[in-house]
Amino acid sequence: MTPEPTTTALAAQHRKEPTYLFSEKQVAEKSEFARRFLDNRTRLNQNVHQADNFLVKRFYNLDHNAEGALPAKYKELMGLVASVGLRCDDCVNYHVIQAFRLGVTRAEQEEAINVALVVGGSIVIPQMRRAYELLSELYSA
Amino acid sequence: MTPEPTTTALAAQHRKEPTYLFSEKQVAEKSEFARRFLDNRTRLNQNVHQADNFLVKRFYNLDHNAEGALPAKYKELMGLVASVGLRCDDCVNYHVIQAFRLGVTRAEQEEAINVALVVGGSIVIPQMRRAYELLSELYSA
Amino acid sequence: MTPEPTTTALAAQHRKEPTYLFSEKQVAEKSEFARRFLDNRTRLNQNVHQADNFLVKRFYNLDHNAEGALPAKYKELMGLVASVGLRCDDCVNYHVIQAFRLGVTRAEQEEAINVALVVGGSIVIPQMRRAYELLSELYSA
Amino acid sequence: MTPEPTTTALAAQHRKEPTYLFSEKQVAEKSEFARRFLDNRTRLNQNVHQADNFLVKRFYNLDHNAEGALPAKYKELMGLVASVGLRCDDCVNYHVIQAFRLGVTRAEQEEAINVALVVGGSIVIPQMRRAYELLSELYSA
Amino acid sequence: MTPEPTTTALAAQHRKEPTYLFSEKQVAEKSEFARRFLDNRTRLNQNVHQADNFLVKRFYNLDHNAEGALPAKYKELMGLVASVGLRCDDCVNYHVIQAFRLGVTRAEQEEAINVALVVGGSIVIPQMRRAYELLSELYSA
Amino acid sequence: MTPEPTTTALAAQHRKEPTYLFSEKQVAEKSEFARRFLDNRTRLNQNVHQADNFLVKRFYNLDHNAEGALPAKYKELMGLVASVGLRCDDCVNYHVIQAFRLGVTRAEQEEAINVALVVGGSIVIPQMRRAYELLSELYSA
Repeated sequence: MTPEPTTTALAAQHRKEPTYLFSEKQVAEKSEFARRFLDNRTRLNQNVHQADNFLVKRFYNLDHNAEGALPAKYKELMGLVASVGLRCDDCVNYHVIQAFRLGVTRAEQEEAINVALVVGGSIVIPQMRRAYELLSELYSA
Repeated sequence: MTPEPTTTALAAQHRKEPTYLFSEKQVAEKSEFARRFLDNRTRLNQNVHQADNFLVKRFYNLDHNAEGALPAKYKELMGLVASVGLRCDDCVNYHVIQAFRLGVTRAEQEEAINVALVVGGSIVIPQMRRAYELLSELYSA
Repeated sequence: MTPEPTTTALAAQHRKEPTYLFSEKQVAEKSEFARRFLDNRTRLNQNVHQADNFLVKRFYNLDHNAEGALPAKYKELMGLVASVGLRCDDCVNYHVIQAFRLGVTRAEQEEAINVALVVGGSIVIPQMRRAYELLSELYSA
Repeated sequence: MTPEPTTTALAAQHRKEPTYLFSEKQVAEKSEFARRFLDNRTRLNQNVHQADNFLVKRFYNLDHNAEGALPAKYKELMGLVASVGLRCDDCVNYHVIQAFRLGVTRAEQEEAINVALVVGGSIVIPQMRRAYELLSELYSA
Repeated sequence: MTPEPTTTALAAQHRKEPTYLFSEKQVAEKSEFARRFLDNRTRLNQNVHQADNFLVKRFYNLDHNAEGALPAKYKELMGLVASVGLRCDDCVNYHVIQAFRLGVTRAEQEEAINVALVVGGSIVIPQMRRAYELLSELYSA
Repeated sequence: MTPEPTTTALAAQHRKEPTYLFSEKQVAEKSEFARRFLDNRTRLNQNVHQADNFLVKRFYNLDHNAEGALPAKYKELMGLVASVGLRCDDCVNYHVIQAFRLGVTRAEQEEAINVALVVGGSIVIPQMRRAYELLSELYSA
């Protein structure tokens, strides 16, 4: 979803886009799981985009990873930890894919998920299991 | 689910049923998303009804919108805000449909969802996205 | 916390401030509970204000009740329902006070809390109990 | 809080009160932690009682342990597990005290808390720590 | 998933396995709902098993019902209450099946779910409804 | 709390302790907020330690930051993000202090909190406010 230009004028000066090693298209070609997730997400976001709700656009604009005090890679993994801990499958998929695109290794992804497992307990195991399925497809040889 | 008559004698005196502009059947004819949800809900509720559990019946009886100090329309939207904030898809579908049946406009539904988005953060975006799909079907010309 | 002027230029056009019947000062004079809460909140917010974090300022700016499709009064009560349901005492205090300032009656506040009680279950009773203490002070003769 | 008589006519037939080994007064004499909690709870509940809200009374009436398919003792511990898992200190205190009054041993209380620790993760440790303080006072020689 | 032998040496001394009346295979033959859940769980767990993550293995080893101060049957129902209260469908399915395997009656399962319904509120009704579907299959004549 | 030696034999081989720039004592001398928190935590943990519960000891042993695929510094910040997102004040205090001890800058701490603010919404603002008070004391000149 393209953020509206008007309120992002100032924001843009504060942002440096992270460098992605892979495009969403490449991710979708590598993993069937990722492809289904991304296709569905795109379809639903078009719907939201069309509604053109002012506050939603401002919120989407806020929810945007950029280089800052912390490397984008670690912020993506922080989003992953929060998503597993709060048990949101769509959010987990999104952050696993974004972290993969930024060159995060599988071992790093697993370790981030482990932080959420200890913090969040066995109730997060269903999210962890499904995340491992996505990891297996993304990091297969 | 029809509440058991015995414990609702007193309760009935306190209740004034809200006026619905549309029946569930009309909603199901308008939106394929709503139809699937309502059919599944009916099927599962029959199952619960058959079990005839005393406390469940009392709880269902409690969980009932009625005119009171607040108009039913706004109480329905309060249920929607809580459902998005607590990230319960089935609950979101239910309250979006009930609000639609009470004549709530799409702009009002979006604004209620916005309250939940700001309060609940980006973790509620998956629920919001799916709610927008239902809104699009219900409020299509 | 005064939102930063730069990003709110456009936002301002979309906003109509609600009319408050009472100032925060009047609320603090009426209720000792409210006074303690407001004093502590002001003290902590000054701290956040001083830090001058860009994203925090943008988020505070987003989290702002204004007249829109829904009357400010009902949006405040929606914030209350979400706060009780998500069990955040500070948030409950804030919305009870704001609703009071907008002229919401005690019966309306109680009914909004009831929505959260049914949705959120007995686990929200501690928040409800403390909210009733605040209500008693605010609505005393 | 005494439940209102009118709606509990039928309910009463379904209830068999559990047998408590200790009164609340005895618990308060044994543990200073328990005394403070019970005094505060009584004070706040009087406030709720005075408000005389119809739905609140019905909900309080619903939230009542009684012998049924499961012994009251294990239902109390189930309430404890849910309270630790959902991280509600007041609820934890209440269920620890009720379980103590029903003759539950300290080892049984600890094992119930362990279920919640594994399910809920390290985020519940603050509740667990405070529960252990109450346990130490209640089960001291 | 077989826990790794090395760290469980001591743990094993503390454990007494509960006696199951039914194998997972028998459960899958009785209920189509259970079969689909167990097949999917096994497939996803193989994936996790293959990853051979050290901390995950230690956590799985921790998350294990065994006779202790409390009978395994009641600990399983405590896991069920926490799972309904925290609204985790996979966890609910798991504990309903394990409780069934330990000889828990349907009335006992329903009463445990009722504890979670009162504690967790109407937001847990979707999990309750789906649990009732599984109960109907497992306890059919 | 010292983990029991028996089950940590293998674990120890997998762990490399992170290097702390400051001791807990130095942190307590710098910040009155931190001192109160650490004193209270120590007192409550002694209580838990005395109880000598087997599973609790194993869980504490699991919940331990160590160098691995990810630097300890970023794992501490991941714990912070999860703690703010799940709204646990004690956990927030703990991770802010640990991150400070590992040499994390204030800007890095704020950015991690921002991730949680966007993910978790305005409901986490009370935790954020209190975290800023601790940050102000820890990072004062």
